[in-house]
Order: sequence, then structure tokens, then C-alpha cells
Amino acid sequence: MENDPRLTPLVRSLPASVPFVGPEAHERARGRPFRARLGANESLFGPSPKAIAAIEAAAPEAWKYGDSESHDLRAALARHHGCAPENILVGEGIDGLLGLTVRLFIGPGDVAVTSTGAYPTFNYHVAGFGGRIEAVPYTADHEDPERLMARARETGAKLVYLTNPDNPMGTWHDAGTIRDAVHAVPDGALLLLDEAYIELAPDSACPALPVDDPRVLRFRTFSKAHGLAGARVGYVIGEAGVISAFHRIRNHFGMSRISQAAALAALQDQEWLGHIRSEVAAARDRIAAIATQNGLTPIPSATNFVAIDCGSDGAFARKVLDGLMARGIFVRMPFVAPQDRCIRISAGRPADLDAFAEELPGALADARKV
Amino acid sequence: MENDPRLTPLVRSLPASVPFVGPEAHERARGRPFRARLGANESLFGPSPKAIAAIEAAAPEAWKYGDSESHDLRAALARHHGCAPENILVGEGIDGLLGLTVRLFIGPGDVAVTSTGAYPTFNYHVAGFGGRIEAVPYTADHEDPERLMARARETGAKLVYLTNPDNPMGTWHDAGTIRDAVHAVPDGALLLLDEAYIELAPDSACPALPVDDPRVLRFRTFSKAHGLAGARVGYVIGEAGVISAFHRIRNHFGMSRISQAAALAALQDQEWLGHIRSEVAAARDRIAAIATQNGLTPIPSATNFVAIDCGSDGAFARKVLDGLMARGIFVRMPFVAPQDRCIRISAGRPADLDAFAEELPGALADARKV
Repeated sequence: MENDPRLTPLVRSLPASVPFVGPEAHERARGRPFRARLGANESLFGPSPKAIAAIEAAAPEAWKYGDSESHDLRAALARHHGCAPENILVGEGIDGLLGLTVRLFIGPGDVAVTSTGAYPTFNYHVAGFGGRIEAVPYTADHEDPERLMARARETGAKLVYLTNPDNPMGTWHDAGTIRDAVHAVPDGALLLLDEAYIELAPDSACPALPVDDPRVLRFRTFSKAHGLAGARVGYVIGEAGVISAFHRIRNHFGMSRISQAAALAALQDQEWLGHIRSEVAAARDRIAAIATQNGLTPIPSATNFVAIDCGSDGAFARKVLDGLMARGIFVRMPFVAPQDRCIRISAGRPADLDAFAEELPGALADARKV
Repeated sequence: MENDPRLTPLVRSLPASVPFVGPEAHERARGRPFRARLGANESLFGPSPKAIAAIEAAAPEAWKYGDSESHDLRAALARHHGCAPENILVGEGIDGLLGLTVRLFIGPGDVAVTSTGAYPTFNYHVAGFGGRIEAVPYTADHEDPERLMARARETGAKLVYLTNPDNPMGTWHDAGTIRDAVHAVPDGALLLLDEAYIELAPDSACPALPVDDPRVLRFRTFSKAHGLAGARVGYVIGEAGVISAFHRIRNHFGMSRISQAAALAALQDQEWLGHIRSEVAAARDRIAAIATQNGLTPIPSATNFVAIDCGSDGAFARKVLDGLMARGIFVRMPFVAPQDRCIRISAGRPADLDAFAEELPGALADARKV
């Protein structure tokens, strides 16, 4: 049934590809667990104890559907961001929200612009709705807003995808550059500003954008700094009219009740967020030090991971990665040259990074041997 | 921005309608909570204590993304149903799975057949992907498989939606009738058999269908009998090739880790399910008795709700419903005549049904007055 004629022509044309293989799938394939889970940019420091308590408190109420308007969480987010609840849509993680966004704006043949090697799940959604990806290269390991906007102008793009700070490189732009990008959005286009890691970046990376500007949607998540990747909560901030369009197509009762409660508690625990910021900063320093001790070059990062330049090409970095995986260290790497000269290490607890520090020399030695 | 020109032509054509208003939204509008929550067919008896314990145990691990393959849950479901894991897809509730299914099979202008007044979320998804709904009437308050299949043949339908037991009437067909419906699926069509309530129906309503039959997908959920509506876990059982198509478009990391754990524990507690079956049977009897005591006619039900025929037309039933809502009893009613002569009451705990019994006479008296 690979080419089931009942499928739409679009679906028949799609590959059966998966953007990412999850760590559990790797563990099942290798037959044993990883020593350190440093590949998915999860927050190994865990969620706020208050979020854990909120999950426990919500458990006996799991028989109730979640509030279809995520009212309490949306209201708290609006207060937090100084906007109205109508400027916010809560959804099932940024992945789910990107899917809805692409569905709103991209029809067959429409163009979406991104950076070569940026988040592949965006491309997956664009392909899934029949759109065409136009990709521009990174400039010096940074996504390049000017190139992105120039390509958008040339191609009449509907969407432009920009991540700040970037994944997989961890690099970032300051607020002024992002503001300039918003002002350069061509007529008829919409900028999707993915700020999944913004809570871990310097304040100077986060622009104060007027919330009534219909040229940009900002994507945020509880999966990274807030440590709730397993709860699936993201949100979009944008002009109220743009936000209202989501209600025409979203799964209105799709938000888990437990996850809404967890996210609300996490948002309210800004002290924990501060604690996470210092843990992540310390972990970034440690990863950088481990890299340097092994003769490799860490890329400065404003996220909860560090890309390490292995000093050669993608084939070499792949060998280092394979060596780490074989030694029980789950990490990932950029997909595309020249960024694929790096491996990408998530901020971990001291024991996780001890394991990485122990295994990196062997992985490097093996990679140089082969 | 109501008609934002950047939206796709399809999205611009969609209404900003919402299939259902949730109880929390009603409560915010009325300014106080309901006395009894009997409108959404949730399981007021709660989830298994083992599912609650599983949620609590998963809470500190909420920093990890959920397994993208829902491996453990899928394996347990496969054992439970006597099929292979490849015959099962786990997703974010039947609502989310119906959305994916419609996206796989319905392109602009394609036809989907359903019953007039059946589950509106299916119609919402069909409209959302540009499809056309063809609806056939109920026959004696039952969805009518023969009529559905005849209409599918006439219209060259891609999808046929059939619920067994039915929502909103609670009626059901025996296994033989469902088997006949599968055999009558026209070439090029696919039967979506929504069995959200099947665990609460007599065994005779559940056909043993060969899992390698590509003409039917069966939809199941943990939201009803298992009492986990707030966790968002549903699944589809079908031929492996048909199931594999979902992997081309689904949100691979969309399943909450906590919800996967909760559903697995619920599935493994079949004793709790037996307890729920008797609670629901007792509640159905009680609702029927309350109806009869008030001179109304309960419709026999194989679900966790009872439709009560208010003995007049939709306008009258609407008045009864409004009277109940004003008295703090959250209930719903069918949308379409002649089923809209009924109100629909979810199986509740004794105290919930006491509240309903207390308020129904006043609501009826008011409805007769106006």
C-alpha cells in the first residue's frame, strides 16, 4: 500500500522520512540505554518542582478534557509578555504550531524561505502542504536575515523562517538585527521568528516588537528552558487578527489538561528559570572547556547546547558522533555543510558532562584512525 | 485581518466556527462553576489509580521528549488487540487522528460521507482540507450503514465515517452489521469506524475484523472508558500499509511523555475498566429512571451517556437544556432534527445524577411555560 491510490496526490508524493530519530529509538536499536542524553537539547536539570507538583495535582482530574481556550495559561502568558490574551495561541509544542502555521499560509507551490541546515521540521511541514523551500546559506555560522529577506523578495515567499538564537549552531543576533529583519519582511510575507531558546540568551537578543505588527509571529516553548519537552506546550505571539486565523483549523480540544497546568506553574516559577539559566551557562562553559582540552573549537552559544567544531569536514564529525553514540553518549550534529563539521552537545548535569568528557578522547582517536 | 490575503484561498473560505464550546468557557461566561459536568461524555469516575500513579511517576521526567514511536504503548496495544505494532498508530486523541486521516485522503473537492448530526469534528476537518461532506439521515435514531455506503457509491466518496456506538444518540449496531458495512465499502473508499465508546458497549457490538483489510480504520481512545480525556491519547488500528502513510505527515514528537505513560497504565488495568463498565451501566439505568420519572423517554445506550427524548421538537429540547445549564447542570444536545428533540446526559457519579434529578423538573416546567 506504499502508493495507495486513495491517498491525495500530494501525500503520495511525500517521502516516508522522519526529521529526527529519538533517543529511545536509538536505545532500542542498540539494545541498551545511553549513559548521557545530550542530543535533543532537553533540559536535563528538569522542570520546576512547582511544575512537577502541578502535574501531580492535575493527575486525578485527567478525566476532564483540557480547557479548549487554554484560558488560564494564555492569560498568564499575556501578563508575562505585556499583551492581550488575543495575541497568544497555545498549542502542542512549536512543532505542532509550525504545522498549523504552514497550513494557514502555504498552498501548493507557495514558497517558504529558510536557512540551509536550519530546523528540518519546518521544511517537513512545508513539503507536507505542497510548498517549496528556498534555502539560503548561513553566514559565518549565523542565520543571515538579510539573505533570507532578499530571497523572500526574489521568490515572492509567503513565509520566512528565522531562529534566534539559532539551532543547530547556537549563535544569535542582537535585538536590533531582528527588528531590522521584521522591517524588511516583504509585502505579502510573514516572518516566523522561532525563539525556542530565547530564555537562555542574553537579554540583548530579545527585541521588544510591537504586538500589533502583522509581519511577524514569535514562537516560544516550554520544552527548553522550562524543562517540559515531554508535556508538549508551545505558544505563538502575534497580531490578534493573525492569531485568530488559527482558530479556523486548530484542534480545539488538543491541549492536554495536565500540560496546561504544568506550563502555568513553570511560567510562574521565574526563580527556577533563573536557576536554569545559571546551570545552563555553567554547562556551556564546561562543554567549551572539554572541547578546548581536546583541541576542538566550541562555537559561542546562547542556547542550552554548544556546537563543537571538530576541525575537519562532515565525514570526520560524523565519525566522532558515531564514536560517541557507540560509547553511550547520545548527541546530534548539523545536517548540512559547512555546519556539519560540528557535533552538538546539550547542556547537561555535571555527571552527564563527565561522561561526555570521558568518552570524547576515545571517539576522537577512533575517528582519526579510520 | 479577518481576510488576511496571505492566508491560503482555502483557509480564507473557512468560517471561524468552533465545533464545541467547552465547559470551562461556559463557566467563565456564566461567572460560576457548574454543579455537575454531564455534557462532554467524560468519565466522571476518573482514570485508574494506576494511571494516576503513572502520571505522578512520569512528572519528574517531563523534561524528556516523549518516545516518537510510542513504542511501549503501541506494543501493549498490539498485544491487547492481537495484531502487530505496525497495525497501530498512537496520536493526540481521535480528534487529532481524524484530522490526520482527512489530510491523507481528502483533497479539494473530494467527498466524505457521514450521518446528518453525527460527530461535527469530522466535518470540521473535512471542510478544513477542502473536502465536501455528503450526509445521510439517521434511521430510527441509528446511523445507517446501508445508506452511508449507498451515498458513498453514488458520490465516489473517499471516506465514510461511521460511529459504533453512535454519538450523540448512544445507539449501536451488532458486529454483523458492521462487518457487512466493511464488505460494502466501495472501491477507492475507506471506512473510518469510530469506536470511541466501544469498551462500554456489549461485546456483541464489536466485530472481529481482519487487521489486514485495507478498507477500514478503527479509531479508539483513552478519553472515554479509560477516563483520560485530559491526557489526549487515541489510536488507530488498520492495515499496516494504510497506517504507515500517517508517518509521512504526523507530528512525530507530538505525543506527551506523561500521556503515553498514563495510557499504558490504564490499558494494563483491565480490572478498573470492568469497574467503570458497571458504574456506567448503573448510571445509564439511573439516567433512564430519572427521565421516565419526568415523563420523558430515554434512548437505549451502549455508551457513557443517555440521550433523553424530551417528547417535542428541537426548540423545546433547547429550552430544557438552557434551563439545566442555568441551574448549573452542564449537558449538551444533538445539533440536528429529528435527533435534536433529545438532550444528552453523561454517565455521572451518584451525586452528579442527584443534581440532575433535582434540577430536571424545574427546567422542564420552565420549558413548558415559555
